[in-house]
Amino acid sequence: MPSEFLHRRRVEFAEVDSGGVMHFANYFRFMESAEHAFFRSLGLRVFEREGDGTVAWPRVRATCTYQAPLHVDDEVDVRVIVASKRRRAVELWFAIYRGEERVALGAFRNVCVMLDPLTGTMKSRDIPSGVDARSEEHTSELQSRGLIS
Amino acid sequence: MPSEFLHRRRVEFAEVDSGGVMHFANYFRFMESAEHAFFRSLGLRVFEREGDGTVAWPRVRATCTYQAPLHVDDEVDVRVIVASKRRRAVELWFAIYRGEERVALGAFRNVCVMLDPLTGTMKSRDIPSGVDARSEEHTSELQSRGLIS
Amino acid sequence: MPSEFLHRRRVEFAEVDSGGVMHFANYFRFMESAEHAFFRSLGLRVFEREGDGTVAWPRVRATCTYQAPLHVDDEVDVRVIVASKRRRAVELWFAIYRGEERVALGAFRNVCVMLDPLTGTMKSRDIPSGVDARSEEHTSELQSRGLIS
Amino acid sequence: MPSEFLHRRRVEFAEVDSGGVMHFANYFRFMESAEHAFFRSLGLRVFEREGDGTVAWPRVRATCTYQAPLHVDDEVDVRVIVASKRRRAVELWFAIYRGEERVALGAFRNVCVMLDPLTGTMKSRDIPSGVDARSEEHTSELQSRGLIS
Repeated sequence: MPSEFLHRRRVEFAEVDSGGVMHFANYFRFMESAEHAFFRSLGLRVFEREGDGTVAWPRVRATCTYQAPLHVDDEVDVRVIVASKRRRAVELWFAIYRGEERVALGAFRNVCVMLDPLTGTMKSRDIPSGVDARSEEHTSELQSRGLIS
Repeated sequence: MPSEFLHRRRVEFAEVDSGGVMHFANYFRFMESAEHAFFRSLGLRVFEREGDGTVAWPRVRATCTYQAPLHVDDEVDVRVIVASKRRRAVELWFAIYRGEERVALGAFRNVCVMLDPLTGTMKSRDIPSGVDARSEEHTSELQSRGLIS
Repeated sequence: MPSEFLHRRRVEFAEVDSGGVMHFANYFRFMESAEHAFFRSLGLRVFEREGDGTVAWPRVRATCTYQAPLHVDDEVDVRVIVASKRRRAVELWFAIYRGEERVALGAFRNVCVMLDPLTGTMKSRDIPSGVDARSEEHTSELQSRGLIS
Repeated sequence: MPSEFLHRRRVEFAEVDSGGVMHFANYFRFMESAEHAFFRSLGLRVFEREGDGTVAWPRVRATCTYQAPLHVDDEVDVRVIVASKRRRAVELWFAIYRGEERVALGAFRNVCVMLDPLTGTMKSRDIPSGVDARSEEHTSELQSRGLIS
């Protein structure tokens, strides 16, 4: 099960800027990619059709702290932690490692909304109970393994 | 002079995700684009060759708070404020507006480094005195106009 | 009127790769951006809601020939030509200039479809008559100016 | 050995546009990613330092023909074929499959250059003999397996 919270990824040529290091905005894509892999590990999708609309999880805040530069072909592991969960919002933390070295820390605060994909309008809503239940199980298991407290 | 701190930009089709709104990581590109326009307004470049290396400004932290979604073809103004300046680091704040409505707030903490573009290695260094002087003038003018205190 | 077929754009830092030149895939974004500006100049949008669906113009072919590298901060002009127009498809040509120097040539072959944005399914359809009429006027004017034959 | 010419990849959320399908420019990134995996399978890198400069492979032409749309989470296989090899240039072909269905065909024409990463200037040069030899072996093996003629 730990593999479901670990997302491995290689830095691609197109992600590196003219300084020879991964462009800072691409760390957010790595985090998003890990977040979506985490959702898939729960049997869920980040964009779930429901009736006429779509349940989506827009960010209200995204942060990254950079600790070491990444270079082309570096392989990194992105660890995902559910830092907090409320009725209509979740906070996810990300730790990015190159081998044993931590190269970045990040966080998303997401709210749950109903989205109309034709107009791009959103309305806040409760986290679907399925997500909640499955993420509870995950959290319990992580706790029983001592990975989170 | 206010124009030098204001960077106007239109949301492009490729920047919008399948939710019909601008992808959250692209706000960081908008901020970077405004930051570079700000550097150009000072007569500087973010990547300045010096001897064998390059003076660069990698971020050690980047943050964005999202307040309203942006849609394709929206025109936005990105305002840049020098929030703090130290010997080897600067903090820039960004406020993104669509007309009168503020849609996002962001911040970069950048350090000044000498970068070897062949290897991507970096070494921290003092902010070049030219940058410092020109940015002082800017700040004084902003203060005299009451735009910052 | 020529301005409607000319789209000016500056190469941004994030668009340049670790070779110090604009990443080859970004030329396609420049062409798309010029194409959309061209649509706007006709009073149209590339994604036009119609009933339950959306009129869209997916590419069936995209090509670029690279003639000179582009560097950060280069300003380029993208010229758009309607190379051919059929009942359900258009071919657009693009010439990218840095000052007097042509740096790239590209082409899109687009088909007109009704798209369901919720599912991403598409069905081929005739070019809307409004587009057709307005683009005819444009073409006539270009012909009368000797810009195309 | 066939696995070295097959590069598997999943369509990510950030790669899908507001039409709900993968943005057309991202196919070029998929091809590039497969090309680099192919280089790695030969024990090579696309950016190889040599003396003061870097051996690089800029494209002089890139083409993609789109046959079916891709959606988020689709897994695709990109097949790489060395279509032709000359003294200073190679042509690579790409076929992108979702399971048994071919969704796109693409091609790159690359030239071999010495690049100065500080200035972004390039000078054409012969393909390094190591690349040539290793790619010959690959081609022979592919021919002996009847995969190419």
